[in-house]
Amino acid sequence: MGNILVQYYSETGHTQEMAELVAQGARRVLGIEVRLKPLAECSLADVLWCDGLALGAPTHLASIPWRVKKWWDEAVDQAWGRIDGKFACAFSSEGGLGGGAELTCMGLLTMLMNYGFLVFGATDYVAPLHTLHYGVALPGHPKTEAEKELCLRLGIRLGEWVAYYVDGNEACHPRNATYSRHG
Amino acid sequence: MGNILVQYYSETGHTQEMAELVAQGARRVLGIEVRLKPLAECSLADVLWCDGLALGAPTHLASIPWRVKKWWDEAVDQAWGRIDGKFACAFSSEGGLGGGAELTCMGLLTMLMNYGFLVFGATDYVAPLHTLHYGVALPGHPKTEAEKELCLRLGIRLGEWVAYYVDGNEACHPRNATYSRHG
Amino acid sequence: MGNILVQYYSETGHTQEMAELVAQGARRVLGIEVRLKPLAECSLADVLWCDGLALGAPTHLASIPWRVKKWWDEAVDQAWGRIDGKFACAFSSEGGLGGGAELTCMGLLTMLMNYGFLVFGATDYVAPLHTLHYGVALPGHPKTEAEKELCLRLGIRLGEWVAYYVDGNEACHPRNATYSRHG
Amino acid sequence: MGNILVQYYSETGHTQEMAELVAQGARRVLGIEVRLKPLAECSLADVLWCDGLALGAPTHLASIPWRVKKWWDEAVDQAWGRIDGKFACAFSSEGGLGGGAELTCMGLLTMLMNYGFLVFGATDYVAPLHTLHYGVALPGHPKTEAEKELCLRLGIRLGEWVAYYVDGNEACHPRNATYSRHG
Repeated sequence: MGNILVQYYSETGHTQEMAELVAQGARRVLGIEVRLKPLAECSLADVLWCDGLALGAPTHLASIPWRVKKWWDEAVDQAWGRIDGKFACAFSSEGGLGGGAELTCMGLLTMLMNYGFLVFGATDYVAPLHTLHYGVALPGHPKTEAEKELCLRLGIRLGEWVAYYVDGNEACHPRNATYSRHG
Repeated sequence: MGNILVQYYSETGHTQEMAELVAQGARRVLGIEVRLKPLAECSLADVLWCDGLALGAPTHLASIPWRVKKWWDEAVDQAWGRIDGKFACAFSSEGGLGGGAELTCMGLLTMLMNYGFLVFGATDYVAPLHTLHYGVALPGHPKTEAEKELCLRLGIRLGEWVAYYVDGNEACHPRNATYSRHG
Repeated sequence: MGNILVQYYSETGHTQEMAELVAQGARRVLGIEVRLKPLAECSLADVLWCDGLALGAPTHLASIPWRVKKWWDEAVDQAWGRIDGKFACAFSSEGGLGGGAELTCMGLLTMLMNYGFLVFGATDYVAPLHTLHYGVALPGHPKTEAEKELCLRLGIRLGEWVAYYVDGNEACHPRNATYSRHG
Repeated sequence: MGNILVQYYSETGHTQEMAELVAQGARRVLGIEVRLKPLAECSLADVLWCDGLALGAPTHLASIPWRVKKWWDEAVDQAWGRIDGKFACAFSSEGGLGGGAELTCMGLLTMLMNYGFLVFGATDYVAPLHTLHYGVALPGHPKTEAEKELCLRLGIRLGEWVAYYVDGNEACHPRNATYSRHG
């Protein structure tokens, strides 16, 4: 069984909506167990438990909100050097198109690289003009079917890499997927 | 007279459309002279001439297209250390939402910082859910009024900083603008 | 009189040492007034007061320490949209070469761009193999003469841009500097 | 057998020196086959062949040299969407401390994420004040034992992840390594 943690921090509910869809996507992958948790309910044990992590936060000044940074600066610090090699991706809700969500996703991933995570985005277009190359970066909350599909796909991809690499389940490699990858 | 260069590289015409709007915005600012030029027609003299630069390119792998990088690696190299302190901003067209345009804008600005440029985005929301904090980053070409306004506003802001700081025209500071900054 | 704020957050004293040198550099520029302040003693009034800002923090996970992010997320929030057009640069002390200080400097600058700052690095080499293209990024504290010179030069450059653009002091443009820019 | 490609572009020989050490490090890992190739001798077949990639380039304007960008823009383009899930890391030689090598490493990794690579750095300190959290970023060429060890360690880590995840060789996980990870 591959273990996936979807950790999110949300103030307005936008990022929480995204997180729920990411978790739903991950659960579609064979043999994956998912924990969906707000930051405030997470402990280091959750990070130690997981094989893959989807980390979500709203975009604050194109960067990680301080509460999220505090948690990773402090709660995980003692495990530094002992959690290398887990898989991770990111998602962020921004105030508007061009508002810094891509930069926030990369900021989250950069922080996780420091802990030794293997980080990724997805090459897929889930619909015309909708992709998630560095994670899901979108204005407001997921409103359209395409925006919801972005979140689902991120969870699916995380599940696929964990199922393929950690569980050794060849059938779960994205190349064997039945969904359209380039809508 | 403040001088502004809008340099763009375009393959499909999307970035060119953006560039034309950026130039149109800059021309609205009092006392600003604008050169709108595709990369292929630019020379180092254009960079030396300008006080402010808006640099636009399509998003290729979330990063600067090689032709644009080649030009700045080679054509400008001999002027390195002699063009410090000019103002600069960026714009990019991406294949889809989340496709890397913000990262490309930051990549362009990072490259320009190496030449000593003072780089910026705009705090303004030009319409609900539309901003340009790190330059204009948008999927495809500017289709809606809000997306066109993003490009215009980038040119206006560049014009304003050049008019205010280079020409010493106090009336051109954004705080004195008559347009809505937070649509 | 151009006003410069050197704001720093320091735990081990490394970033404080850097900050003191940055402030010392800025004070060398004609007509510049400098406030050197630890984060805990800063208020929004300091940001409103300054024309130029040098912001320094240790590298925590290649990113902004949470206390610094908290301050800028909260203390400055109400002034968003009213502090555009100030000049800013960054400095960071990292745990080791390759430890994320350049990324932290860019993270600090990205955050400041969101508030409308005009951000920059310096093209100068202050000694062989020592530059500050994206701010001062160095392992530990400034130990060698070259490392100290990096910090001084950052302050000087900030002072120069403020003196030139805000005070209108032509003589302060870096092109008229008497120090060697390409050691 | 896990396959590793060390692709490098070098003008002065600095990056080539780094590449040779990275390849040497990868070869130390059980069951790993290494191809060490300059960009000019690489073809798409090499990318398709490899399970893991170490990509090296000099820092040009804190960003990817145009020849490297051209190669990845053009030679690999047709394989986009078919090479997802390989492992990748980066290394770069810069003109001086603070010269943009960390940003170049992240630029290379961002480009590779667009192709679906799983990217990483290493948590290890190989000596006091020497780490490689985002790849190896160093001024000039590897001169000291510690700088050489950075390059070796990058290759070792890439080899370890490929051996562990692709070959399923549990003994190759870094947690079982005999070298000191936190010198």
